[in-house]
Amino acid sequence: MGTALASTLLAAGYPTTVWNRTPGRAGPLLVSGAVEATSPVEAISADVVIVCLFDHASVHEVLDPLADHLTGTDLINLTTTTPEEARELAAWSSTRGIRYLDGGIMAVPAMIGQDGSTILYSGTPEVFERHEQLLRSWGEATYFGGDAGLASLEDLALLSGMYVMFAGLLHGMAMVGSMGVTATSFVTRAQPFLAAMTETFPAFAETIDSRRYDAPDRQSLEFSDLGKLVRASTEAGISPAVVQMVQDLIVRQRDAGFGDEDFSRIYESIAHPLTTESSAP
Amino acid sequence: MGTALASTLLAAGYPTTVWNRTPGRAGPLLVSGAVEATSPVEAISADVVIVCLFDHASVHEVLDPLADHLTGTDLINLTTTTPEEARELAAWSSTRGIRYLDGGIMAVPAMIGQDGSTILYSGTPEVFERHEQLLRSWGEATYFGGDAGLASLEDLALLSGMYVMFAGLLHGMAMVGSMGVTATSFVTRAQPFLAAMTETFPAFAETIDSRRYDAPDRQSLEFSDLGKLVRASTEAGISPAVVQMVQDLIVRQRDAGFGDEDFSRIYESIAHPLTTESSAP
Ligand SMILES: NC(=O)c1ccc[n+]([C@@H]2O[C@H](COP(=O)([O-])OP(=O)(O)OC[C@H]3O[C@@H](n4cnc5c(N)ncnc54)[C@H](OP(=O)(O)O)[C@@H]3O)[C@@H](O)[C@H]2O)c1
Ligand SMILES: NC(=O)c1ccc[n+]([C@@H]2O[C@H](COP(=O)([O-])OP(=O)(O)OC[C@H]3O[C@@H](n4cnc5c(N)ncnc54)[C@H](OP(=O)(O)O)[C@@H]3O)[C@@H](O)[C@H]2O)c1
Repeated sequence: MGTALASTLLAAGYPTTVWNRTPGRAGPLLVSGAVEATSPVEAISADVVIVCLFDHASVHEVLDPLADHLTGTDLINLTTTTPEEARELAAWSSTRGIRYLDGGIMAVPAMIGQDGSTILYSGTPEVFERHEQLLRSWGEATYFGGDAGLASLEDLALLSGMYVMFAGLLHGMAMVGSMGVTATSFVTRAQPFLAAMTETFPAFAETIDSRRYDAPDRQSLEFSDLGKLVRASTEAGISPAVVQMVQDLIVRQRDAGFGDEDFSRIYESIAHPLTTESSAP
Repeated sequence: MGTALASTLLAAGYPTTVWNRTPGRAGPLLVSGAVEATSPVEAISADVVIVCLFDHASVHEVLDPLADHLTGTDLINLTTTTPEEARELAAWSSTRGIRYLDGGIMAVPAMIGQDGSTILYSGTPEVFERHEQLLRSWGEATYFGGDAGLASLEDLALLSGMYVMFAGLLHGMAMVGSMGVTATSFVTRAQPFLAAMTETFPAFAETIDSRRYDAPDRQSLEFSDLGKLVRASTEAGISPAVVQMVQDLIVRQRDAGFGDEDFSRIYESIAHPLTTESSAP
């Protein structure tokens, strides 16, 4: 990812100095005009320092010894972290006079700088404003606010949606696979079906934001009972774990007396795990 | 759903007799020319008998007393059942000289007869062929084969994908909701993101069908570790259950020694719950 970010900056005409723990990985970037630093301290004598490492721990491992040199710098960290980790880095920066901006990359390396690439940002607003043009060279740049944890929270929330959707797809493939239907044949129907079903998301959102789970004409929890899916999975000899997870959420709300309210009421079991039984405000 | 099916047939010009357990619900259909039967036996003296009731048990409750009268008929059952239940009804029909076709409706009532409505069929091929034109009046009609359980299996597999995707979306909403971001704002990003991510389904399918989880350049299980998502969910005060379900599948494959293989290897944990540890063929 670091290579993709740096090569896009070079293509956009930004003078760029690169450093990587294992030397020699900057090869193709040097051809495009990058300067290779032989130590991290050499790499940070710049207007803006951009970090993209493995995780939160590796960021500290690299930056802790450099703290004094970073005072007064704009620091943009594109390493994936949790919101708490981003806030910790923002606090660490703040006490050292470093202006911190956190970023969450919603793209694979090949997409950087292309249509469809988005990076989410939160933290010091001045850093976002000052470097907005640079940030836009990587793709869409969305700023969420001063709390450095916000971009990461949104990033992880979108990734949750994606991984859980993938698990649901793989469960469907396993169901039809038990009868010899190929995954390739299944996706010719599952892909357009699930893509079309994303069109119902705004209606869910409206229900959630208003907590009006009892609006008429919505699909009820009773109707959404997944007992049939769990049973059919078991009968097909596959693990029901993926659909059982959703059924557990449905059953909790139904047992709490909300069976005739909207399916999306399972949101309450997720958002308020300890107070599920309370009525919506 | 019964009303939607009958009114579409009437609009397409098919003489239609209707029956419903609670009388008086056929009102609007009678205006469109339907004949109301006062008992089920009156409703089945037809070329083709179409059944859409609550569940498998209600189908038997209505049809068992009529078995003798149904001999020689084409019976199309659009009630949602499990594959095993569909097969049971096919066997029940077969011993009574009834030609059984099972259908799984992939639409809500308002969509019947419109673009985007699909009904999946399996069972007696002659019934599908003979009535294909009638079936197409409801929407797309896809025939899966002679095993009556196939349409239902596909139906439930697609529904699994949908409900699990919804759970993932609601989890994402709960994550950002913990920081005061509205669900409505979240879906402006989550809807296009998840819709775009369905484009990766064919690549998953290819990996699954070939069992080539070790192809180069794919996203590994190690990289897909959802520990961060689980931790961030807990830190946000929400239930990690939805993402924990996916993480459990990942951990099982990783612990079995496949950490550097493709993420989609969690398929093996779903499809072969008892033999996860075995290597792919
Ligand atoms: N790849 C993607 O599709 C993608 C998408 C979105 C976000 N991200 C995020 O981007 C970040 C980088 O991902 P990547 O795909 O580039 O991963 P990667 O290919 O594994 O690269 C990790 C980089 O971190 C360095 N590193 C690891 N531990 C270090 C340490 N203790 N000290 C110094 N350097 C260390 C590695 O240096 P060596 O070369 O010396 O090992 C390498 O340059 C991650 O946080 C990832 O979650 C990636
Ligand atoms: N609605 C959808 O969006 C949708 C989508 C796909 C598939 N389906 C499937 O279509 C089928 C019907 O769904 P629906 O939405 O029409 O449900 P519904 O509105 O609850 O209607 C159920 C129907 O079944 C009848 N019924 C129930 N138990 C019976 C019994 N023991 N004996 C005789 N009749 C009985 C009811 O008669 P009374 O009027 O006398 O109660 C009513 O006509 C279900 O299998 C459902 O899964 C529905």
